[in-house]
Amino acid sequence: MSHNLSITETAAWLKARDNFLIITHRRPDGDTIGCAGALTFGLREAGKTAYILPNPEITPRYERFIVGCLAPDGYCPEYVIVVDTASYDLIPKSAKEHTNKISLGIDHHSSNSLFAENTCLDDTRAACGEVIYEILIELSGKISEKSAEALYVALSTDTGCFAYTNTTPNTLRVAAQLIEAGAPNKELNKLLFRTKTHNRVKMEGTINSNLEFHFGGSVALAFITRSMIETIGAKEDDMDDIASLPGTVEGVRAGITIRELTSPTDCKVSVRTTPLINAHKICKHFGGGGHAMAAGYSRNKPIAEIKEELLEVLKDFIPQAESTLVTSSSP
Amino acid sequence: MSHNLSITETAAWLKARDNFLIITHRRPDGDTIGCAGALTFGLREAGKTAYILPNPEITPRYERFIVGCLAPDGYCPEYVIVVDTASYDLIPKSAKEHTNKISLGIDHHSSNSLFAENTCLDDTRAACGEVIYEILIELSGKISEKSAEALYVALSTDTGCFAYTNTTPNTLRVAAQLIEAGAPNKELNKLLFRTKTHNRVKMEGTINSNLEFHFGGSVALAFITRSMIETIGAKEDDMDDIASLPGTVEGVRAGITIRELTSPTDCKVSVRTTPLINAHKICKHFGGGGHAMAAGYSRNKPIAEIKEELLEVLKDFIPQAESTLVTSSSP
Repeated sequence: MSHNLSITETAAWLKARDNFLIITHRRPDGDTIGCAGALTFGLREAGKTAYILPNPEITPRYERFIVGCLAPDGYCPEYVIVVDTASYDLIPKSAKEHTNKISLGIDHHSSNSLFAENTCLDDTRAACGEVIYEILIELSGKISEKSAEALYVALSTDTGCFAYTNTTPNTLRVAAQLIEAGAPNKELNKLLFRTKTHNRVKMEGTINSNLEFHFGGSVALAFITRSMIETIGAKEDDMDDIASLPGTVEGVRAGITIRELTSPTDCKVSVRTTPLINAHKICKHFGGGGHAMAAGYSRNKPIAEIKEELLEVLKDFIPQAESTLVTSSSP
Repeated sequence: MSHNLSITETAAWLKARDNFLIITHRRPDGDTIGCAGALTFGLREAGKTAYILPNPEITPRYERFIVGCLAPDGYCPEYVIVVDTASYDLIPKSAKEHTNKISLGIDHHSSNSLFAENTCLDDTRAACGEVIYEILIELSGKISEKSAEALYVALSTDTGCFAYTNTTPNTLRVAAQLIEAGAPNKELNKLLFRTKTHNRVKMEGTINSNLEFHFGGSVALAFITRSMIETIGAKEDDMDDIASLPGTVEGVRAGITIRELTSPTDCKVSVRTTPLINAHKICKHFGGGGHAMAAGYSRNKPIAEIKEELLEVLKDFIPQAESTLVTSSSP
């Protein structure tokens, strides 16, 4: 049933239809929200009716980019579109009533399971926003200021402001086009990358002072407990992209963050790696997945047990694995 | 005597001459070093003799990008070129024997005092590297891999990896061209922006735990003493772009770093601001200068006195100045 549509075919598909509902993925990031916003604005500018399904997990950090987009109660769409979503499991539970038929998936994950009726997939793109950009250009030949802003959020957040290894010349050129179309990059960069809340500064200090180094310093483990979050009073916005923190320490080839979510036995593990270590394969071992250098999985166990089983599995992934355990005394 | 040369005129000027010595500025950053490297490689590829004058302040972080470029003892240049250098004062003391006649300055600072015999200045560019890029394209129609790497260092470090407010569509497009010409952006970004030494992590923790907030949180003051640096054992490389740290805290419109250099009364003050506050004007008040949102000055006084006189001057620059003093308890 699944089928790959090209950019041109996807634009034609959209042009021939109307009344869309766009769905963002669980634990929504800047890419899925920026894509949903830009697609909604773009479809409306093309004379269509389009809404984003409310997602209870959207944080204040990103909700400002989709003002006026959320579907009202009782909206009956003809076509459901999911953006930046690699598998059916990543659709929020609250969206399940709409997802018996997903007409179109637009994505950039090579791991996409092609669960939608039609899929427009380009896994050479750093952000799904680059795919949406091409579709909107094909649809109407231009990008409005609001779409440009939403897409800049998508591109910049998925690439850590163009610093992550997924960044390509195309990412940079599309970003240049978006700025020329009105994306306020100065304000967006300041907001998204150059502003830390007091709580964020405290959270980073706490995480850094508890980092654990394994395999001769190749692996850094960060632990985020509910008690740390409660003590600091951190909000979800204070935690954005926190999984990238352990990987920034010199010599680390795999930066791993284990975080307690709703209880001490409901944990999310985020794995960020350098090119020689495949994060997707590590996470697949525990039923998760993602990209080659950024992946994750969920686990219903306490942090200590997750750590032990993970270190065991990591032995097969870390080149020249050493059993040395070094615990940092960094502040 | 000073004279503005266009990009085309500068390329023609270089083409008609030979035997160049290129000078980097004091406390050299990625832009001045990247520019010097790229220009040296580009001139050599065009059949010229070109060297960079050794600068004792170049750190290991950047010296790897100009391997093979340094002038041997006794090299007698015909033409001296300075890059990314706004005034004669910013030339290293060790270079003074070569600077009785500076034939060409290539720069992007609007504050350039036009001290060179000829000046190619484009103050719309985020990095001087963008100016060098255009000159090299004009000179030989292409960019070699080594020049591309050096210029990527220039562009990315001067824009905080494309996050600072100076970043323009041109910056991003030139960066895209450089990646296509062979600049290894993945490795460079990892090295320059996504790797913190253990000492850097400690230094940031110490600075953050001693931040002082003034004017209702609009101004953050960071203090870096010689004793902090000695206790941590930090090297100059661990301090790169540390002046951007206080400005990243939420609500801060002016992030100021006061750092002891050779003694407790030899201090460097770095001022980073948001658009409403002119950093150059603040620093000019104390005999320094720079860009509108990033400037600095030197002062032969202890930190406490520098702080008092600066807070007095800041009253005229901070909108709706408040006298509240808040001292952070962040880690």
